[in-house]
Amino acid sequence: MAAKSMTLILTVAIFVSVFLALANGISDMWKLPEVLSRRQAGWQQVASGKRQANLAKIPPDWILEPQLLEDGRSRLSIAGDYIEDLLDDKSRYITDMDVPELVARMKDGTLTAVEVVTAFCKRAAYAHQLSNLLLEIRFDEAIERARELDDYFREHKRLVGPLHGIPLTLKDQFHIKGLDTSMGFIGWLGTFEGEMGTGKERNIESELVREFNALGAVPIGKAPETNNNILGYAFNPYNRNLSTGGSSGGEGAMLALRGSAFGVGTDIGGSVSMPASFQGIFSIKPSAGRISFKDTANTGEGQQVMPTVVGIMGHSVDALRMIFKSLLSLEPWLHDPYTLPIPWRPEKEYNARSELGSKPAFGFLTNDGVLTPHPPISRAMEIVKEALANKGHQLIKWDWPHHRETLEIHSLIARGDGCPDVYEAVKLSGEPFVPEITNLFPNGKPRAPLPLPEYEQIVSRMKTYRQRYLDYWTSTAKRTGDRPVEALISPVTPYAGVLPGKFYPSTYSSSVNVLDYASVVIPVTFADKEIDVVSPNFRALSDEDRANMEGYDPEKYHGAPAAVQLVGRRLDEERLLSLAQLVVEALNNYKSKSNEER
Amino acid sequence: MAAKSMTLILTVAIFVSVFLALANGISDMWKLPEVLSRRQAGWQQVASGKRQANLAKIPPDWILEPQLLEDGRSRLSIAGDYIEDLLDDKSRYITDMDVPELVARMKDGTLTAVEVVTAFCKRAAYAHQLSNLLLEIRFDEAIERARELDDYFREHKRLVGPLHGIPLTLKDQFHIKGLDTSMGFIGWLGTFEGEMGTGKERNIESELVREFNALGAVPIGKAPETNNNILGYAFNPYNRNLSTGGSSGGEGAMLALRGSAFGVGTDIGGSVSMPASFQGIFSIKPSAGRISFKDTANTGEGQQVMPTVVGIMGHSVDALRMIFKSLLSLEPWLHDPYTLPIPWRPEKEYNARSELGSKPAFGFLTNDGVLTPHPPISRAMEIVKEALANKGHQLIKWDWPHHRETLEIHSLIARGDGCPDVYEAVKLSGEPFVPEITNLFPNGKPRAPLPLPEYEQIVSRMKTYRQRYLDYWTSTAKRTGDRPVEALISPVTPYAGVLPGKFYPSTYSSSVNVLDYASVVIPVTFADKEIDVVSPNFRALSDEDRANMEGYDPEKYHGAPAAVQLVGRRLDEERLLSLAQLVVEALNNYKSKSNEER
Repeated sequence: MAAKSMTLILTVAIFVSVFLALANGISDMWKLPEVLSRRQAGWQQVASGKRQANLAKIPPDWILEPQLLEDGRSRLSIAGDYIEDLLDDKSRYITDMDVPELVARMKDGTLTAVEVVTAFCKRAAYAHQLSNLLLEIRFDEAIERARELDDYFREHKRLVGPLHGIPLTLKDQFHIKGLDTSMGFIGWLGTFEGEMGTGKERNIESELVREFNALGAVPIGKAPETNNNILGYAFNPYNRNLSTGGSSGGEGAMLALRGSAFGVGTDIGGSVSMPASFQGIFSIKPSAGRISFKDTANTGEGQQVMPTVVGIMGHSVDALRMIFKSLLSLEPWLHDPYTLPIPWRPEKEYNARSELGSKPAFGFLTNDGVLTPHPPISRAMEIVKEALANKGHQLIKWDWPHHRETLEIHSLIARGDGCPDVYEAVKLSGEPFVPEITNLFPNGKPRAPLPLPEYEQIVSRMKTYRQRYLDYWTSTAKRTGDRPVEALISPVTPYAGVLPGKFYPSTYSSSVNVLDYASVVIPVTFADKEIDVVSPNFRALSDEDRANMEGYDPEKYHGAPAAVQLVGRRLDEERLLSLAQLVVEALNNYKSKSNEER
Repeated sequence: MAAKSMTLILTVAIFVSVFLALANGISDMWKLPEVLSRRQAGWQQVASGKRQANLAKIPPDWILEPQLLEDGRSRLSIAGDYIEDLLDDKSRYITDMDVPELVARMKDGTLTAVEVVTAFCKRAAYAHQLSNLLLEIRFDEAIERARELDDYFREHKRLVGPLHGIPLTLKDQFHIKGLDTSMGFIGWLGTFEGEMGTGKERNIESELVREFNALGAVPIGKAPETNNNILGYAFNPYNRNLSTGGSSGGEGAMLALRGSAFGVGTDIGGSVSMPASFQGIFSIKPSAGRISFKDTANTGEGQQVMPTVVGIMGHSVDALRMIFKSLLSLEPWLHDPYTLPIPWRPEKEYNARSELGSKPAFGFLTNDGVLTPHPPISRAMEIVKEALANKGHQLIKWDWPHHRETLEIHSLIARGDGCPDVYEAVKLSGEPFVPEITNLFPNGKPRAPLPLPEYEQIVSRMKTYRQRYLDYWTSTAKRTGDRPVEALISPVTPYAGVLPGKFYPSTYSSSVNVLDYASVVIPVTFADKEIDVVSPNFRALSDEDRANMEGYDPEKYHGAPAAVQLVGRRLDEERLLSLAQLVVEALNNYKSKSNEER
């Protein structure tokens, strides 16, 4: 009887709240009093309401015609020319610029912040409509903030900060006042990390967001993980057959479509590096402790042994360097006890003019013995090899046969607890698990957690692994005849993209997280069905290696970006970024030579 | 039947091995083939053999007469005059010098390394005989090494390194080639951390030992924890009623008796700071990651969330600074992945001449609301307060009522696994638990480990605690009217020493470890039964506070050193050491003024 009247009350409440929501305009729908009723409304309805509320935040002028939308959503590739052709000249001109240039144009007064932010918002709006890329939208607030920045510039004749007027997007794990943070969990909408009535709902700002504001940068929205029940699947804008990669996949796709000038993701097992490599953009995943992760939503927060780190995605190494350096200028360690008091160290940067002795040597890892890279990745590696050899750099074959160990270490540390917080977050709304996380919950329940003493043994194993790896790295001094190699060049993944649902763990990236090393992803080329075919000499290392290579289909992968990563030792980001710039210059040199020869 | 013949074989084996040992000389007794038989020999016999082997490593000239020994072991205090009177003039003269002076004398050629090392070995030999302070002795090897250093100096006219010829002792947790590392576990003698036949027995060198060797420093022996079944209890050399404190207690006592020029301990909950404060010496416990802990014996190694750190004990802030800086000059992060690439940062040091603006302000914590400090500690605090006020420094009352929380966080993180490795180490030999660790094993067994998800919740709590604390620290800028306070002045413990077996956890020090902050201990005064009496106005905060104060007995504590600690934010060691020097100078100034007034 009591249950029945409760149901009646809730049903009425839902009707009333939907009615009120419609009356107030869709974008105001998500008020706290309605959260309870939304939770009872069925997850599909809540998700659909959220999607509509998001659309309502896009100015009518920027809404794509249904036919155009249908066309775009059926295209194999929407990156580059396709999305550019949709734009007006001015928006295209602005959004094709990179961060340093944009700042320079605003500094010399040839562009205003409002122009810059508006152009990117428009392009982001298109990207979102074509590819489900924004869980949260704040175009109005961003343009309003840009207006303030312009006022400041007019009055003081100087920029607010080094990232004045630069629009960015962030993975929906960072809190921004006025927006939800759901990480794609429907039960988290309208709550604070799943909790209601805390007073923190849409009222908390992540430290990193505060820092970007202080630097003058302007968040325009938040991007989803690869797949979620609110927006659905985010496909690779270069090739609709493929995934954006996880987990900062939406962020990667938004960058690939140049809907923002730079992006912020998070990484515990390649979650920044993979989507960057799949989508032809640059990224840096630093070691833990350089960029603040304070006051963010984080399932697995109590796992601090191999913590999630913040990574930056952008359109050039120059941009990454500028953003990274700007963040450190704010001394984040004064606000976040988990950020290390290490300022930007210019003395670590490679400088050909001031450094004597031989050129930096690189480690070179073509195959780690677990999975053989698909042909486009191997070709990208070859290109980098030749480009660096042309410049006189020594490449040392990386003889490290122990990557496989990182799989177990990584999964037991990251998920040894059975991921009860992810489970609870999904269960809040009753939504189903997206296929990407189903394997975490066999029989629909969290796995039993590892006993603490066993977990600690894994931590000890990780410690030993890190030691052996560093010893190996140091030992390369014998082979270079000089200093140890300065960075390692390696695939990010052994595949040139992922067919949705067909994901193999990549030991090329899990190793980077187990080591807490830094990684910069450098786009190199694109899969080409004419060139990139599996060699008849390919001999599988194992059944899984065969399966990985069989998954490669030159037709399906055609056009997918192929990248490499430059891996640097722990907390060596300044050096690594300068070496990445050196690699980029070698690549440019190599490519212009190849073009000349044609 | 089989069991009986086994017993027979073992009994014979024991006789044979003891015979062989006697035949080879006691100090060679601990050869590997005998380990198995020793394990069967009964822990008392093994312990007694070890004690005799140690004595055999002391030159006959340095063996104290039985009568003298009896006298010394019955004295209330053996520090200062007592041990000095036993020494010849030259040894006394040398061992009274501090590290910087010793290095200067060896540099100008007025002292040789052999003279310096021999003098300290002799004094250490006396200290050991009087107070059970050396689990491992390497006088012969140390003097031999000193000879090499002298040869080098004669040939090259320069010192080997910045710590050339400086004798040190280390807590018996660091590996030195040729010596056991037992941490006091009888079952570990002759093994590698309890394992036999690894080839690593007495053949591994801790990274820190390698570094000290490279710097020219000379390890002369290894000191025990406060209590163990090999050497027995280590009493406070200033007051035999009291403990040396744990766990680097032997190391602290060795320093108090000036048996070494500096010492190395380890700290996870005040294990360096407490023995330093109880024994009137200086110490620094840095944040994790500054000094290498690589290749050391470590129960609880898999606990990396709040890791054990290495601390240095010495006779002055100058000496600590010199040692700390020397270690960093070797770039330990190139060898140890758990050491941070942060070199010595001279720009962080306080320099009255170059810094504009107001003098550094200090936080001042007289009572953290958990346990009220004993009168000598409160008086030490008052002395520091007046000394700094005389110099014009602002002291800000520390209103942080949450220290109690660190007790639970600390114990659940440090011991949430039930300490199975400690249990196994004790069980190897069948020795009984020393009273100091009995509480870890109720009913003689390890506690059930915390479930991993609960453990991770504690880690999250620690994270939140660190954040709140840093926010509080930063907020003091409002009260100073300038920058936040630069360091916190606080008791190390709420007691002026510990009566053996009567240990209360100190939230003044557990908080430092939970925060991963750095702490420098500064000796201030000594308990004085005439002055240090409990005020009639004392009102206990709780039953435990009453019990703590009732434990104070002016008679029993008379003569015990009383210290304060200077706590600095995470990884702020350079600043903290320079501020500690400032406090020391203020104290010297204050004391000479007080003497003048008398």
